[in-house]
Amino acid sequence: MTRRHAPPTTCPPAGGASRKPIGVFDSGIGGLTVFDAIARRMPAEDLVYFGDTAHVPYGTKSPDAVGRYSSEVARHLDGVGIKALVVACNTASAVALPKVRRSTHVPVIGVILPGARAAAAASGSGSIGIIGTEATISSGAYTRAVGGLRPGARVTGAACPLFVPLVEEGWWDHPVTETVARHYLGPMKRAGVDSLILGCTHYPLLRGVVGRVMGKGVTLIDSAAATAVEIRALLRRIGLERTDGKGRHRFIVSDGPERFRRLARRLIGRDVEVRCHRFDL
Amino acid sequence: MTRRHAPPTTCPPAGGASRKPIGVFDSGIGGLTVFDAIARRMPAEDLVYFGDTAHVPYGTKSPDAVGRYSSEVARHLDGVGIKALVVACNTASAVALPKVRRSTHVPVIGVILPGARAAAAASGSGSIGIIGTEATISSGAYTRAVGGLRPGARVTGAACPLFVPLVEEGWWDHPVTETVARHYLGPMKRAGVDSLILGCTHYPLLRGVVGRVMGKGVTLIDSAAATAVEIRALLRRIGLERTDGKGRHRFIVSDGPERFRRLARRLIGRDVEVRCHRFDL
Repeated sequence: MTRRHAPPTTCPPAGGASRKPIGVFDSGIGGLTVFDAIARRMPAEDLVYFGDTAHVPYGTKSPDAVGRYSSEVARHLDGVGIKALVVACNTASAVALPKVRRSTHVPVIGVILPGARAAAAASGSGSIGIIGTEATISSGAYTRAVGGLRPGARVTGAACPLFVPLVEEGWWDHPVTETVARHYLGPMKRAGVDSLILGCTHYPLLRGVVGRVMGKGVTLIDSAAATAVEIRALLRRIGLERTDGKGRHRFIVSDGPERFRRLARRLIGRDVEVRCHRFDL
Repeated sequence: MTRRHAPPTTCPPAGGASRKPIGVFDSGIGGLTVFDAIARRMPAEDLVYFGDTAHVPYGTKSPDAVGRYSSEVARHLDGVGIKALVVACNTASAVALPKVRRSTHVPVIGVILPGARAAAAASGSGSIGIIGTEATISSGAYTRAVGGLRPGARVTGAACPLFVPLVEEGWWDHPVTETVARHYLGPMKRAGVDSLILGCTHYPLLRGVVGRVMGKGVTLIDSAAATAVEIRALLRRIGLERTDGKGRHRFIVSDGPERFRRLARRLIGRDVEVRCHRFDL
């Protein structure tokens, strides 16, 4: 893995490094839930979002492929010039965080640890559920993270492959989605979890259905919100938080921007300007 | 687009070019329905299947990306040494066939024309339905093909984005799949189509559900079977058909073979040996 250096900044903008944008990266559109959570909590920050739409979805790809795709995106954002990188994609956070860290010069935060921390804090009984893509669940990353934070916790995981296509179809509160949710969440209910990590960036959009199926006693943990809190704390700690002015938002995708633009309107309720950066293949 | 030449065959096998395998290419696993149809009709032929699992699915990607991915696969199979290439993927057939033809030396057959031909022949009323991925439907390729074969035909198209994930989840005859099918196929029923092209390699696995929803008066056109008939006719015509012995089957994927192996067992009911050929990204 070669480490590409960011081009030297010959004329730093006023405010120095703190004025650089935060990079937010996902395999496609789902990371916009994380992007949105960051934008709401840190309205003064410039943000640059990269959706690797040429390779979406990551959740059914091998860890090796996810690692190669993620490194390439991190190198590209490093070259664009960012002050920190949020890996908004659960799958990439689960299987490729060390590779991403080797591919950039800036601090990197994934979504696994913030989500696990929030769940470990929220759970009374220590019985915690985690739902995500096949790759995220089979990586065991959330189970390890929760176990490290709260020894003795019992973690029940389930892959929910149909949830992402259902979100992308816009069926967020459709009877079909509820039937599918009842099927996938059966093991969670039987295990008696009292908190459930929505371990995929698309899943917060199914919060209504999942909440109904799980019942009121179960706390739903949205990694997006937890990650936004964590990146703000990090930037404060290293003196790079920006609090003045109104941040600008940029969007880059690795395949045709039309579909992204259409789904973004649905997901975050606004029109976005999207630029395309193609990788070699 | 550079055209890569196949390596010279220094020691041609007995039987010459006819003993080379037929290449069958798909974005992932779905093309195995076409592979299976060819294997049943031409048991003496060697077959080599390429599933571009690093880039699957094609159906939500841009025509440009599908063109680049498809060309790369065609060049690879050209280098492996094949006597003809079947583009089993409907999306690639719809948007990338000219690019694929420029990337190989051998005759290329897509699935659109065989499917359209079968539908044009089967329809009494001239009202024909076509279901497929977003990319296939919005390309208009089936509509043009049917129109060219049967002027005056009325074609009704519908994208069915959830069908592929439902097939890959194994829910071929699940109540959820039937509900989804009723939703997607509404426009077909209202248009009164008398034949319906299953315009995606995964869809023949939903034949039961789709048939039930459409009713007995509607002929379902499976491009897989039509394509197998067409490739045999082509090989006969150019004198490259092989009829002696038992063909060998090889499988190549561009990402980790485990998931492919597992789904292949489900789709064609047998264990397959899979080799991996990674592209640069």
